[in-house]
Amino acid sequence: MDYDIVGKRVPRTDSLDKATGIAQYTGDISLPGMLYGKILRSPYAHARIKSIDKSRAERLPGVKAVITGKDTAGYRFGVFRATRDQYLLPIDKVNFFGEEVAAVAAVDLDTAEEALSLIDVDYEPLPFVLTPEEALREGAPVIHDIFPGNAFRSLVEFGNVEEGFAQSDYIREDTFSTPKVSHCQLEPYGALVNYDSWGKLSIWVPNQSPFTKRRALSNALGIPLNSIRVHHVTIGGAFGGRSDTFPAEFCGALLSMKLKKPVRIVYTREETMFATRHKHSMSIWIKTGVKKDGTIMARDIKAILDGGAYMSSGVMAVNVPWQLEEVVYRSPNMRYEGYRVYTNKTPASMMRTHPSQLHYSEDVQLDMIAKELNLDALEIRLKNAVQPGEKLPSGSKVSSYALSETMIKATEMAGWKQKRGKMGKYRGIGMGCAACMAGFNLGFRGGSSAIIKFNEDGSATLFSGNVDNGQGNESVLTQIAAEELGLTMNDINLICADSEYTTQDPGSYTMTAVFVSGNAVKRAAADARQQLISIAAGMLQVEPGDLAIRQRQVYTVKGAQKRIPVEDVIRMSFLKGEPVIGRGAYILKVDDTDMLSGRVHGQQTGAYTGGTVVAEVEVDGETGSVKVVNLTIVSDCGVAINPMAVEGQQEGVSVMALGETLCEYHTWNKDTGELQTGSFRDYKIPGSLDLGSIKAALVETIDPEGPFGAKEGGVTCGPAVCGAIANAIYDATGIWVKELPVMAEKIYVELSSGIKDETGN
Amino acid sequence: MDYDIVGKRVPRTDSLDKATGIAQYTGDISLPGMLYGKILRSPYAHARIKSIDKSRAERLPGVKAVITGKDTAGYRFGVFRATRDQYLLPIDKVNFFGEEVAAVAAVDLDTAEEALSLIDVDYEPLPFVLTPEEALREGAPVIHDIFPGNAFRSLVEFGNVEEGFAQSDYIREDTFSTPKVSHCQLEPYGALVNYDSWGKLSIWVPNQSPFTKRRALSNALGIPLNSIRVHHVTIGGAFGGRSDTFPAEFCGALLSMKLKKPVRIVYTREETMFATRHKHSMSIWIKTGVKKDGTIMARDIKAILDGGAYMSSGVMAVNVPWQLEEVVYRSPNMRYEGYRVYTNKTPASMMRTHPSQLHYSEDVQLDMIAKELNLDALEIRLKNAVQPGEKLPSGSKVSSYALSETMIKATEMAGWKQKRGKMGKYRGIGMGCAACMAGFNLGFRGGSSAIIKFNEDGSATLFSGNVDNGQGNESVLTQIAAEELGLTMNDINLICADSEYTTQDPGSYTMTAVFVSGNAVKRAAADARQQLISIAAGMLQVEPGDLAIRQRQVYTVKGAQKRIPVEDVIRMSFLKGEPVIGRGAYILKVDDTDMLSGRVHGQQTGAYTGGTVVAEVEVDGETGSVKVVNLTIVSDCGVAINPMAVEGQQEGVSVMALGETLCEYHTWNKDTGELQTGSFRDYKIPGSLDLGSIKAALVETIDPEGPFGAKEGGVTCGPAVCGAIANAIYDATGIWVKELPVMAEKIYVELSSGIKDETGN
Repeated sequence: MDYDIVGKRVPRTDSLDKATGIAQYTGDISLPGMLYGKILRSPYAHARIKSIDKSRAERLPGVKAVITGKDTAGYRFGVFRATRDQYLLPIDKVNFFGEEVAAVAAVDLDTAEEALSLIDVDYEPLPFVLTPEEALREGAPVIHDIFPGNAFRSLVEFGNVEEGFAQSDYIREDTFSTPKVSHCQLEPYGALVNYDSWGKLSIWVPNQSPFTKRRALSNALGIPLNSIRVHHVTIGGAFGGRSDTFPAEFCGALLSMKLKKPVRIVYTREETMFATRHKHSMSIWIKTGVKKDGTIMARDIKAILDGGAYMSSGVMAVNVPWQLEEVVYRSPNMRYEGYRVYTNKTPASMMRTHPSQLHYSEDVQLDMIAKELNLDALEIRLKNAVQPGEKLPSGSKVSSYALSETMIKATEMAGWKQKRGKMGKYRGIGMGCAACMAGFNLGFRGGSSAIIKFNEDGSATLFSGNVDNGQGNESVLTQIAAEELGLTMNDINLICADSEYTTQDPGSYTMTAVFVSGNAVKRAAADARQQLISIAAGMLQVEPGDLAIRQRQVYTVKGAQKRIPVEDVIRMSFLKGEPVIGRGAYILKVDDTDMLSGRVHGQQTGAYTGGTVVAEVEVDGETGSVKVVNLTIVSDCGVAINPMAVEGQQEGVSVMALGETLCEYHTWNKDTGELQTGSFRDYKIPGSLDLGSIKAALVETIDPEGPFGAKEGGVTCGPAVCGAIANAIYDATGIWVKELPVMAEKIYVELSSGIKDETGN
Repeated sequence: MDYDIVGKRVPRTDSLDKATGIAQYTGDISLPGMLYGKILRSPYAHARIKSIDKSRAERLPGVKAVITGKDTAGYRFGVFRATRDQYLLPIDKVNFFGEEVAAVAAVDLDTAEEALSLIDVDYEPLPFVLTPEEALREGAPVIHDIFPGNAFRSLVEFGNVEEGFAQSDYIREDTFSTPKVSHCQLEPYGALVNYDSWGKLSIWVPNQSPFTKRRALSNALGIPLNSIRVHHVTIGGAFGGRSDTFPAEFCGALLSMKLKKPVRIVYTREETMFATRHKHSMSIWIKTGVKKDGTIMARDIKAILDGGAYMSSGVMAVNVPWQLEEVVYRSPNMRYEGYRVYTNKTPASMMRTHPSQLHYSEDVQLDMIAKELNLDALEIRLKNAVQPGEKLPSGSKVSSYALSETMIKATEMAGWKQKRGKMGKYRGIGMGCAACMAGFNLGFRGGSSAIIKFNEDGSATLFSGNVDNGQGNESVLTQIAAEELGLTMNDINLICADSEYTTQDPGSYTMTAVFVSGNAVKRAAADARQQLISIAAGMLQVEPGDLAIRQRQVYTVKGAQKRIPVEDVIRMSFLKGEPVIGRGAYILKVDDTDMLSGRVHGQQTGAYTGGTVVAEVEVDGETGSVKVVNLTIVSDCGVAINPMAVEGQQEGVSVMALGETLCEYHTWNKDTGELQTGSFRDYKIPGSLDLGSIKAALVETIDPEGPFGAKEGGVTCGPAVCGAIANAIYDATGIWVKELPVMAEKIYVELSSGIKDETGN
């Protein structure tokens, strides 16, 4: 396509501010008279709160207020109405180590911290559970009365699984496991809240949707929606871990409401680690039946997710695996049973690399099957790869899709044919695949809407409720508007992510930003464009249909050559009293699914994206440590609005997945339930020195529904990384990796024991 | 009409913030790292700047920058492109005492002030002129090269004046004069400017139009429009005196651009007095011819306006008198010649009570004529009062209009018949009339536009570019939107007066707020209402035409009784992906006039308002001082959106006019050109103890074009006050007041000399 801005490698509009430190994150913002908040946290994994005496803390000079669960209205919050399980502050018991117990506002941080030490809490420790196995055991301590079995179950079945297995030539069962990891947003969590004398609550907080945040605060605090404003703020990462509402904002709000002063609470790294959200660890059993030629006939999956102490987005986390699994490797008959289990640990939520757990398990098992059937890993994948136009088991239709093409391109780029099985001792190559959706529908989200208004020089202001957590949404929305209007990016001022000043948006999760918010922006721009062209047609005395706009000029594309600057047309629009104001809205055309009750058939998303990762690894025979030497990442994101940005995103998510494959995991003290990996000293994320060469590339499709053909560009390849690395390790060592992360000591032990099992059993 | 909110006496939405001190004016706002600016001012009325040495000031610790005219690009600014006569900072000469010469930014105010004393300016004093007479004299010093005669002239003539006089039975000529006064906004002037590293200029400044301000700053500073944001800020009065751009913002901007730091400059009261704007003083000669029955046949007017050192809105000030005069007392033949003269004094601009100068002169002369013809003052006014439906000499059509009714109501309320001529020595009653326009068109202003978007609970955000200078626009626009949408005022969050976040608006001068901005808001609300009703019709399965909205309910007005809350309809709109976003625009239907060239025929305004004031005075025979015992104010504002607010406005403007009638005036030292009345110690404004009883009332008309029938509510009666008081003084003493203000000493001298001249000659 012949575009001026879309598809171009342009610098992101947020780059300069971030690179130079001008960007203001929540912790950078101060308000006059602001107080500093700190939160007292539970030293127990599970305990009854018998009493709290805050009088000593309240008497400390400089302390302005101390609040506990008794200062709340006893309301419980949560992502879904039916699964609200968390009090703003606990009323009667704490359910994980580090849970919020009380909060303090003081004139400075030191005083606030000292005050915490003066709050006397009388706890009665309770037995706790740290693993799903313990939690599901008969007689296990019950964490929430509304879930007496400690688990939420999801079951879906498509086709006839038993028949599928009966038609299979080869069947195998394997069990895999993945760790609990953290999102590790580089910005620690925090909230700045100002409740003023007129009952207006203003909040600055890293979030994934100002509108969802506003609704949650309104519900929890009993404040009318239009008395709450969630402000735009620069956000240092979310990755699915900031969809929830957290005690930081509730405590901030309650303190500010009590004091009518701004209160800022910024978590330490440790608090961010143990008191925000983790990714679900999973234990996955898969039974797969195939024909001799590798064609998958049936699949039976049982997944057990460690959910931690609260539900958060657990209902989604337990369902998303099958939603994305069905679009990678075709399986006509499929059963998926998922258990999301409460444990006395940090709550788990969705995370950007989700559902790498299932993709990884399938990719490793598929390599095992290929090995068994003497098929090449690429060959078996191409045979089973879902194709555009297919209807998936759930009934969801795949529109544009290029999974196969990404497989071919990634393996070609990586030198698959030259290297696979031919790299010698301790060096190997492997591949994995993944898919993603461009948005899905959950609860009340509505669509996205956008407004564009003009200045008299032809520049414009674009309003979108969408929020940029770091993935570059602001930049992409600006490109879309500029392209549609024939303006430059500098001509567009974007106002976004402000619950009061911008238009409704479903939020930046479930990968909606480009597809949903982008479509709304494109429609608003198209609406404005039409008005602009209509005025210009009158000025040039031609038909509107004869006109186009590019590079700030309206010009004829047929008939006599005429042109007029956009600025002159806009000026005329004001003089005529018909200012150009464009509006547009877009909502996903998906079927109404209810994950809670299991009504999940029908269209799941607006568009699917597919991706392939090829990893080349080197294993240190003396230590067992694994180094990813080359990582080749190829994704189908539809038309890339900004290829450079999409490649950057695919690199980012891949490194994130590389971390959970090789080095990231949380551990807990079994005696106390304490998180042992709360800092970057104890919890290792990949640094630049841990990375080899990364090559990212795109296979562009043109999606019929996406804005300018775009779909999703931030996630796709990530979940394919784990399987690719695991399969490369097998290629290098003959060791099947069935448990993540890949610990050097485990590889070392296996290497030392001389095991080189061909089947992995 | 049956409205829920319009026409109700509701508390203004801005009252609480202002009454409790929460409102943030420019001087209340601080930004991190902010510097304090001060301006060095000329000690001469007219002088050549030979050189400026700023080195000593720059060396003072804490001083960050010093700028002079040499740091500017030599650009000249002004309200009209053709009359731009003022440099951002003077390059070569200063033209009035107190004019800006240099500016300093420092870490605190004390340092900035000390730095001013270290700037060495070498002046060469020039001869100066302090009165129009001096300025118009042959060989007078020329103030601006572009106006070598020191004057701008406007001449309009309608009908045949000579013929009109020929047909008259009685002709008289009189000369009147009025003082230079100040707007006396209670908020001193100032500006906070922040130019950031990316070239974005943010400014907080009391203004009458953020869009006009943005354009002026963009032109003067060479910054693109969309790199400037004029922020919403609470404003402590404007009254026409804050339409211009001032050196405060240019100096703030230039300093901030140099330092990339926020700079705040707040004027002292004295600076606000001598370096912002004054009202034009006028000397007015009127020749009027009437029939025996009092019918006016012809009028010839010559007005000389003292404009001070710069043009400001002088082109308007010289024309507005005839534009408003022609709609009060009918005059088929009229000639108006106005001279707006440069003098070496504080520049004069429009002021809210404008053109009291001409109204006052006409009212006093009309009473003289009535006396001469033995007619009652009310009778001669009723005979000549313009009526609705009339076409004025300029060709402008009068739609709704109730000047006569205000005369009748005001005189009845004041007990005219019982009191006029019957109140005995030193007590008298008099009347005056005035008119106003609801907006007029000048240069590039465009119309107003508005947007409304909804929250999922049915509350809404309204965007309007209109600015509230204290007259209550924010409150009125909220009422209009709430009424149209069937919501409560609390449901509407208004975002206004922000050049970037809100929609274009012509600004709050020439009385456009309710008529123009209000119409835009009403249209945006009507657009939203239609969408809302259309969705509700689908939900209720009725025709859209059968539905109404009131009190947050959509309900059937015919057929089966059905109803649904607005909240449910809005929720459905989001679920359908069709969010309700209303947009609306309005522009005045006026003819394109060009005051500069004198092309002024045709429709002048959207609607005319008329008003009558009756004043009852008591004169102290021993001192000559005048006390206004009762003031009765009756105006026709169309439908009063909020009668309490309109009455408040009419009281406010009347007290303002009372000040210039009785006590306000500026004086200059004739030897130095220094303003002698720069503080409230030397310049007396009426306080509450100076006021007698004030009764305000409305005669409501329903204007066919105004929103809900509304026109203009902030100005009308003011200019009628001066004539009413002057005429009451004649009724009390037999002294014709032909010069304002009414100085006690002059009354005393005339009383002492026993003059009780029946004709005033």
